[in-house]
Amino acid sequence: MRDFSRDRSMLALNTATLGHNVDGHGAGWSPERVIDACAERDFGAITFWRREIGDRADAIGRAVRSAGMEVSGLCRSPFLTGPLAPRTARAVRDDFEAAIDMAAALGAPVLTIVVGGVVEGSRSIGESLLRVADHLAEALPYARKAGVALALEPLNPVYAGDRSCLVTVRDAVDLCERIGAPELQIAVDVYHVWWDLSLERELARAGAGRIAGFHLCDWLARTTDVLLDRGMMGDGVADLKGLRAIVEGVGYAGYCEVEIFSAADWWRRDPEEVLDTVVERFHGVC
Amino acid sequence: MRDFSRDRSMLALNTATLGHNVDGHGAGWSPERVIDACAERDFGAITFWRREIGDRADAIGRAVRSAGMEVSGLCRSPFLTGPLAPRTARAVRDDFEAAIDMAAALGAPVLTIVVGGVVEGSRSIGESLLRVADHLAEALPYARKAGVALALEPLNPVYAGDRSCLVTVRDAVDLCERIGAPELQIAVDVYHVWWDLSLERELARAGAGRIAGFHLCDWLARTTDVLLDRGMMGDGVADLKGLRAIVEGVGYAGYCEVEIFSAADWWRRDPEEVLDTVVERFHGVC
Repeated sequence: MRDFSRDRSMLALNTATLGHNVDGHGAGWSPERVIDACAERDFGAITFWRREIGDRADAIGRAVRSAGMEVSGLCRSPFLTGPLAPRTARAVRDDFEAAIDMAAALGAPVLTIVVGGVVEGSRSIGESLLRVADHLAEALPYARKAGVALALEPLNPVYAGDRSCLVTVRDAVDLCERIGAPELQIAVDVYHVWWDLSLERELARAGAGRIAGFHLCDWLARTTDVLLDRGMMGDGVADLKGLRAIVEGVGYAGYCEVEIFSAADWWRRDPEEVLDTVVERFHGVC
Repeated sequence: MRDFSRDRSMLALNTATLGHNVDGHGAGWSPERVIDACAERDFGAITFWRREIGDRADAIGRAVRSAGMEVSGLCRSPFLTGPLAPRTARAVRDDFEAAIDMAAALGAPVLTIVVGGVVEGSRSIGESLLRVADHLAEALPYARKAGVALALEPLNPVYAGDRSCLVTVRDAVDLCERIGAPELQIAVDVYHVWWDLSLERELARAGAGRIAGFHLCDWLARTTDVLLDRGMMGDGVADLKGLRAIVEGVGYAGYCEVEIFSAADWWRRDPEEVLDTVVERFHGVC
């Protein structure tokens, strides 16, 4: 297991941790200000959200690299299925391709995929995943051409209805195996998988080559909101070192990306304090 | 698969569906009024909650049987671990035994176990389940003597922090196998397991003899509260017939128990309407 007690070269910030700085959340920092603040603290990389990038993907990607960091990824694809997906298959495809284009322009090696909920009228996780597979099969050649990997992120089963009918690493590995493309990978987020005692077995089945990312936050024992009340590392009940040992045990050697949605707490604080806390906790409890 | 298009002899009411009629929820119906309303509608059985029973377990059990029904179960054990559990092991044991005594007095063949959350300070689902196993091993001789089975109910992973570190049928089967007592069984609730594509395999591993109950409600695609916003059967995205086919496919032949926590919707309606709707949906969509 890698020693991160002092080293933060593999620490990445997911900008969701600062409330995206748009849509009324966060302190309103520009991407450039986020880049400077991360560079000052020796972060290794930043993952952005599309809403923060607008039409400045090239410039923002260059600014990250000029500051000595990498762009670790881009969030995210449209929902592919379910009540929150664009209303037509064509609209899904167009937005999916726009997301891939933006990732390529940023220099992000990977685009996160949140697959969307149960297909309306189907009442079936299995059928919905087949529809997801169709969308992925359609997007993969485009992603391959753009040099962007697609990272399936299984979400906590609480989201299965509307946000992700893909709820376990097991199902993600099955989906990868069904499709069989090396560009189709898996992102492991402790918020979504911390409860799963089969994680080690399933990640071993995936293999290190399929693990595109490892996301950090914590699960608060008495969480008040399953979307926007994630905990800072160390404040919850997830076994963060144990989970990292599992992903590294199967060979993962990439970034540890801190992604904390916290509308009532961390998003209301000074971003400087949030970043300092992230660094401190990364060294101490992750 | 059993044909319930007209037959409701295997339909059971879990009184949570009527808001328990205590603590400010529900219409304030007495247990006797619930019994009459269920008997009028040809329900086969009722499962009560301890808070509704007080010191009248014998009388209420007799009233159910006099009305031609059975008591299908009692909810529930104390939380055994985590932040909501009684503060001492002794207090857990005393309350556990009181619950077993009440089930026996009611004539309930089974007591539902909700195991409680992650042990404080442990940050480990696995360790917490070991602590749960200790509590169960202590209670099982008492339950055996009382003629009451203990039904482990795995809860949706969203509750893993505070209410149930037991989150999958897989883990429940593992726990049963570790302890190896025939009185230790499993309750399958569609709210908690509907997303799990391994359900059929895991229930086959459990075997019919270990399935103590099958609970019905629905998962609303855009649920607003993961504790008290369950859907009426047919209003959500769970594959209710498919799930029943799975439990019956491994040999389950017991009650289908309707358990709907719905503070903002069904608990505010006239209980007569709720029960009529339960009957209609049971025949139609379950």
